[in-house]
Amino acid sequence: MKNSDPLVIEIGEREAIRLATSQFRSAPSTLVGPGDDAAVVGLAGSNVVITTDTMIEDHDFKLSLSSAFDLGYKAVATNVADVAAMGANPVALVVSLAVKRDTRVSWLMDFARGLQAGIDELAPGAAVVGGDLATANQILIAVTAHGDLAGRDPILRSGAKIGDQIAICGTLGKAAAGLELLLHEDPTLAKSYPELTAVQLRPTPPLHTLVSGLPGITSMLDISDGLSLDADRVATASGVQLALDSSKLLGFAAILEQAADSLQSRDGIKRNPMDWVLHGGEDHGFLVTLLPEVSYPGFKVIGSVQAGSGVLLDGKPLPPGGWDSVAD
Amino acid sequence: MKNSDPLVIEIGEREAIRLATSQFRSAPSTLVGPGDDAAVVGLAGSNVVITTDTMIEDHDFKLSLSSAFDLGYKAVATNVADVAAMGANPVALVVSLAVKRDTRVSWLMDFARGLQAGIDELAPGAAVVGGDLATANQILIAVTAHGDLAGRDPILRSGAKIGDQIAICGTLGKAAAGLELLLHEDPTLAKSYPELTAVQLRPTPPLHTLVSGLPGITSMLDISDGLSLDADRVATASGVQLALDSSKLLGFAAILEQAADSLQSRDGIKRNPMDWVLHGGEDHGFLVTLLPEVSYPGFKVIGSVQAGSGVLLDGKPLPPGGWDSVAD
Repeated sequence: MKNSDPLVIEIGEREAIRLATSQFRSAPSTLVGPGDDAAVVGLAGSNVVITTDTMIEDHDFKLSLSSAFDLGYKAVATNVADVAAMGANPVALVVSLAVKRDTRVSWLMDFARGLQAGIDELAPGAAVVGGDLATANQILIAVTAHGDLAGRDPILRSGAKIGDQIAICGTLGKAAAGLELLLHEDPTLAKSYPELTAVQLRPTPPLHTLVSGLPGITSMLDISDGLSLDADRVATASGVQLALDSSKLLGFAAILEQAADSLQSRDGIKRNPMDWVLHGGEDHGFLVTLLPEVSYPGFKVIGSVQAGSGVLLDGKPLPPGGWDSVAD
Repeated sequence: MKNSDPLVIEIGEREAIRLATSQFRSAPSTLVGPGDDAAVVGLAGSNVVITTDTMIEDHDFKLSLSSAFDLGYKAVATNVADVAAMGANPVALVVSLAVKRDTRVSWLMDFARGLQAGIDELAPGAAVVGGDLATANQILIAVTAHGDLAGRDPILRSGAKIGDQIAICGTLGKAAAGLELLLHEDPTLAKSYPELTAVQLRPTPPLHTLVSGLPGITSMLDISDGLSLDADRVATASGVQLALDSSKLLGFAAILEQAADSLQSRDGIKRNPMDWVLHGGEDHGFLVTLLPEVSYPGFKVIGSVQAGSGVLLDGKPLPPGGWDSVAD
């Protein structure tokens, strides 16, 4: 009897790619999609934004915690967030996937559906236009995303000016709290806070609030590695100092307090939710600097740009914490 | 005493990326290079060609055979060949690299130099504009390459028409012969045929012969998986039959005969050089179909397109051989 859910290596590259790409819809900009040596994408403007991000099993995710659908969704989210942080509209993604020898076709299909769901919800003008399928000892996911600036200048991390406001668009600390909940040996903890674990497993960067290039944004960054580290990057690139006001961050911390208490009640270790807010990565919200007179719904002002270097919290230096994807 | 060649994980992501990207030159089209959320690339035309290819240790290469420089060079070659096979000029590459915990910084730097050397020799108008660095249990290299069609239509594999000539631009079988030599237990064999092993380790797709979109090419494919398999892809995509003439392939086989004899003299196993020519992949030359009246220097006519399906060799069906990157 044939197994109704064969291994990917049993059906081979061509059939596996055919099945996976059957889950994808093309976008108006997709002139030639999967199947040739390369894809062809039409862009309204002539400047293209390109970014890439890799997720590696047991380093960036665990198969025991993330479903294939989650991983496809997250791979889209992290990459389109980077495109949006440049002020561009995501139009095309190419996806390199390495599966393991024991990966089933059903896993591949869930992954493909997660990719398309992420596109549908976060970047409906985009499409998967190509990719590559291989086998390896770990699941490897490398996505390259492309955006159209539609004639606008890119928004760089080097554009912050003295006197600008600093604002957050999106959440802070939820993904880090969600990760601690997911990693806890008591599985009921993660189940009690689905809103926090969801941000870790399927982050939803608020691209909809950035639609059509909001004027007055002087710099922008996708917060992937934590506020303290990513703010330091803006400060360094712009040659300025970012002064954060902890009172403006209390709201982000408050909604994490109950989860911190629940964790402490299990293992006796006290968590400070503000640590998650300041140093936790992977929420994939946006850190922006804004001209003084500008305000937009969905943007929470948390400080101001001044002369100097590095990042201050309530006037004291805030050393960059967060995540280095390579260091020991 | 500090090790003069530290591990990549000892210096961390930021410093490792800084060192590696110091090896790269930007191209005129690079508006924003490595360092922000994404790169920005300017393109003369508005249609962009995108392709991606992944190389995984022990599956696509062995560190005992390929130097880091070789791997960087080959990663460029395979990807810019795909861009050129669409009729586009390579302009930008993003490179995702996963190193192992024991990978040294010197290896990373050799890899970066190999990338730049591949660009310099094969696609001097292009540049590495971004990338990603991670750690994994195997070395993983995923390159995404981008090309500019400069207003031309892409050349697809589906464009072959009955009556067209079939031609090869580049080499056939050298990479496969080179691989057998490299894998042979007697290391003097590989050393005796450096021209063949070089094609395997650092393929040089003849992009220079395709400069500025040669008119009269009706379809084109990068031969990465072997002539028989890639010709079958053109036949299927175009709805035609590709009839190959073995007498036109003898020249490709003749220059491999001495290597076949040398291998046989070591292990007694007879090789047919024509098998390398027909089924060996990784030379990364181009399989093209041409209008009947067209000829170009550097293109060797090997058959003609006729009504039917699949591939014929001297009138008999030639089943697709070659390489499936996933199947067992």
